[in-house]
Amino acid sequence: MPQRLFAHLTCSVLSGAGDDFLSMAECQYIIKHQLEALRAEDETHVPGYSQAKLYPGKSIIRRLQSKGILVQMFPLHDKEELKRLSFSWYRTVRLSLQPLDAIRRYFGEGQALYFGFLEYFTIALLPMAVLGVPYYLFDWENYDKYVLFAVFNLVWCTVLLEVWKRYSATLAYCWGTLSRKKAFEEPRPGFHGVLGLNPVTGRKEPVFPSVSRQLRIYLVSLPFVLLCLYLSLYVMMIYFQLEGWALSVYDEDPTLWTEVLTYIPSIVYAVVIEAVNLLYRYAAEFLTEWENHRRESSYQNHLVLKVLVFNFFNCFASLFYIAFVMQDMLLLRQSLATLLITSQVLNQLMEAFLPYWLQRRRNKKMIRKVLRRRAIEEKELPLAEQVRLEADMNTYLGTFDDYLELFLLFGYVSLFSCIYPLAAVLVVLNNITEVYSDAFKMCKLFKRPFADPAGSIGVWQLAFETISVIAVVTNCALIGMSPQVKAYFPESATQLILWTVAVEHLLLGFKFILAFLIPDVPKHIRVKLAQIEFESLEALKKKVNHLLVVFKLNRNGSEA
Amino acid sequence: MPQRLFAHLTCSVLSGAGDDFLSMAECQYIIKHQLEALRAEDETHVPGYSQAKLYPGKSIIRRLQSKGILVQMFPLHDKEELKRLSFSWYRTVRLSLQPLDAIRRYFGEGQALYFGFLEYFTIALLPMAVLGVPYYLFDWENYDKYVLFAVFNLVWCTVLLEVWKRYSATLAYCWGTLSRKKAFEEPRPGFHGVLGLNPVTGRKEPVFPSVSRQLRIYLVSLPFVLLCLYLSLYVMMIYFQLEGWALSVYDEDPTLWTEVLTYIPSIVYAVVIEAVNLLYRYAAEFLTEWENHRRESSYQNHLVLKVLVFNFFNCFASLFYIAFVMQDMLLLRQSLATLLITSQVLNQLMEAFLPYWLQRRRNKKMIRKVLRRRAIEEKELPLAEQVRLEADMNTYLGTFDDYLELFLLFGYVSLFSCIYPLAAVLVVLNNITEVYSDAFKMCKLFKRPFADPAGSIGVWQLAFETISVIAVVTNCALIGMSPQVKAYFPESATQLILWTVAVEHLLLGFKFILAFLIPDVPKHIRVKLAQIEFESLEALKKKVNHLLVVFKLNRNGSEA
Repeated sequence: MPQRLFAHLTCSVLSGAGDDFLSMAECQYIIKHQLEALRAEDETHVPGYSQAKLYPGKSIIRRLQSKGILVQMFPLHDKEELKRLSFSWYRTVRLSLQPLDAIRRYFGEGQALYFGFLEYFTIALLPMAVLGVPYYLFDWENYDKYVLFAVFNLVWCTVLLEVWKRYSATLAYCWGTLSRKKAFEEPRPGFHGVLGLNPVTGRKEPVFPSVSRQLRIYLVSLPFVLLCLYLSLYVMMIYFQLEGWALSVYDEDPTLWTEVLTYIPSIVYAVVIEAVNLLYRYAAEFLTEWENHRRESSYQNHLVLKVLVFNFFNCFASLFYIAFVMQDMLLLRQSLATLLITSQVLNQLMEAFLPYWLQRRRNKKMIRKVLRRRAIEEKELPLAEQVRLEADMNTYLGTFDDYLELFLLFGYVSLFSCIYPLAAVLVVLNNITEVYSDAFKMCKLFKRPFADPAGSIGVWQLAFETISVIAVVTNCALIGMSPQVKAYFPESATQLILWTVAVEHLLLGFKFILAFLIPDVPKHIRVKLAQIEFESLEALKKKVNHLLVVFKLNRNGSEA
Repeated sequence: MPQRLFAHLTCSVLSGAGDDFLSMAECQYIIKHQLEALRAEDETHVPGYSQAKLYPGKSIIRRLQSKGILVQMFPLHDKEELKRLSFSWYRTVRLSLQPLDAIRRYFGEGQALYFGFLEYFTIALLPMAVLGVPYYLFDWENYDKYVLFAVFNLVWCTVLLEVWKRYSATLAYCWGTLSRKKAFEEPRPGFHGVLGLNPVTGRKEPVFPSVSRQLRIYLVSLPFVLLCLYLSLYVMMIYFQLEGWALSVYDEDPTLWTEVLTYIPSIVYAVVIEAVNLLYRYAAEFLTEWENHRRESSYQNHLVLKVLVFNFFNCFASLFYIAFVMQDMLLLRQSLATLLITSQVLNQLMEAFLPYWLQRRRNKKMIRKVLRRRAIEEKELPLAEQVRLEADMNTYLGTFDDYLELFLLFGYVSLFSCIYPLAAVLVVLNNITEVYSDAFKMCKLFKRPFADPAGSIGVWQLAFETISVIAVVTNCALIGMSPQVKAYFPESATQLILWTVAVEHLLLGFKFILAFLIPDVPKHIRVKLAQIEFESLEALKKKVNHLLVVFKLNRNGSEA
């Protein structure tokens, strides 16, 4: 077994010029970029590892990683900064907002935007939660009085995302990542293929024909996803049978125990959904890896698409079936509540407590060291000790799971919360604990992740907007099915449906016009961007004039 | 009256370096830009015109124009080039495509893209026209056999626009305008306001508060447009009354004359539509001018929006009413045919023959000169003579009206052509004559327009895509109303509507996914763009390395 190598990266080189010039996350990003750009000049092998060959122009770090010589590479936590950050973030219960700028300085823009979105989403849910409580308290049995709430939902989920786009642009402008151009992307580490010429750079690198990838996507991945969707439907049908059986048992013998029994199928189904989602997640990762995408962004997009479609279907299919095929609003409310509460409880367990517990179990010795470290917190720990401690911590796998959870919560709230107004309250409570548990796990449970500069929440914006379009459709349909609206069309069901459809089309059209009319970037930011562009144009003009003067002088000189 | 000044711009200065380096249109654009950038240095007045004051930093040309000293400014036709262009373009009837590159060299990218789109649209219509003729010949009375045709329409109008986007990107790449950055926009000539500070440049210029503009848009323009829409509905209702009256006369006394009478209301209505469109156009221009937009692009967007919404409503409201309220497919077919044929005839008259005739009438003397010029075509005409001749020609007002016409034709074809399959044939014939008449008027009737560099057809792409979305809805509705589909749901109209709506939603979703999946820029162009970016990155790296070496040498020098 090769001897473990520890790499210790500090920002001192770059941050010497003053702490304000580059944030810690930016220094870290630059160092990582530089390390990855170290390339072999001649064909040789790693000193001491004759089987690990180096090829000219190839990244040395990547080679070391793929041969297992470099086991892991990660930035170290900065204890002073982390202590300051965690105090202002989660270690005191306060009513103020999260220190997004400090999070961005320590973890980078990607993390900070996630926490910004989480906070924004929670605040945006407050009016709904406030509206939901009296609805829940005074109209519990009048579940047909939901028209107003559905209309509110409709407007809310459109405005929410438009305003977020502007807020996110403001944040990204302040952090300098708004007009960030995409860097030229290297192939991702897992990418393999026969050696060929890259058409862009003209350099030799592994090449994988795009046709093969398309074949894999459309002949294997797509059928697999469809099969999974079918299986998910099958599981749903089993759930409905169980539900029917439990109800029939309760009808025959209505005791407390049989009433409890009626809740069992929903809870079991909710747990099964979570388990299936997790299993599918691994399958999706395996398939997307096998599709062999060249760029990390394309890998991410395909993974997100696969996971989102299935999770959406798996979580919401039963609700859609109950709402629009069975048209049983009481069951819908009960199902929604069970699904929401069970998934929240499971998520909190899986996300914060499980890793914490696993880590404790896996490394009691380390915990003791951590405790000892805490005891002597004032003293400086030897660097090698700190490296060894942090190397055993869990690796943070990115914001994917966190966004996915928010995506599903957003779906529950925007699609069906008019039936169960307490959903918004539950989500708000969940989000508040989420902030604390996410902050805790970022600071204490995980290795410090590499910062990734980001100008927006990327593909997730699209995912949330898709949900908000579907929300318009479901809310219109729910309104059309409500007894109040039905009362307006006592004779003709056809008239009612036609009106519902017409209103829905108008609302969808209006939504698109609204999204088009509201500028994505607030005016004061646009003015600032225009200023920057104007100044660079002026500077260019000056340079051209300067060159012309130099040219003239030269010509005069040569003429003379 | 001030003496007329003629400005004579030739490209000889810039095109000296070789004809291939810059096209004529590009030279012209640069010269115009430079002329407009001529700014007064001190506060003075135009020599000889003491009332025409010049302010420091203000464009001199604009001042001359606004004071009426400079009456007009236009580029001259290049007789040699024009002759070559017109021979390869419209003066010989050929089966080959238009010489888009030559058009672009002479008139600029904006014009060339319009003619490219016209040609593309015509070719794309061919399969539909070919399919339409047998439909028309063999199923004339079986107007309910349109389901297949409607499905074809659905697919066609989505694919058409996606493929055009890729083709247009290819053209724009070849012409070097694809990744063209928007230049910093000066205020448009008509813009006025009190003198204030421009927040971007920090310079003094007229400023008009955005709030006042919004008030004008929402309190005056919007109500005006709504009023016009209402009036258009009113006219439509009068048309239906006339139509009913004519039909009742025919029913009482069915002779040839009364049968002709039944066609009269449609024709009169079609003429009224065209006239109202024209009147509204002037009103929209006046209103948009009054809204006082600072930038030309914002002015154009507001004008296009106003005109499109009204024209769409005015032309198609009666068809929608007949199709979905009256559900009279025979009348729909007749109305569509009358509207389409009348508007085509009127358009050709207004667009090519009317200006030609007006010009002849207005300036018989000039025509005689033109004729004389043609007689002595080989000889060189004196420059002043040519300037005087061309100054009296009509001014080309941009591609707006041409695109608007295509927009309405696209609407007729994609929305309702399944009812009247011959529509595609009529539009193809119209487009072919349109190519010739547009080419003729560009080369012979109008002053040569200033070239405008463009990377796409801009806001029109969005307009056509909106129509194609509406086309999905109407075609689904027409399919749902067809007797064939109705036969599948003999008992329940509700079931039929629900299925139609479900299929329509699926198709709309599929359309958006398709638009998202198909890349807007073809792969070989993307590779080339990536190459350019990669090369510029490599060049930057070299420069940075060079600077580092210089820095080191300097340091070594100073240390030594």
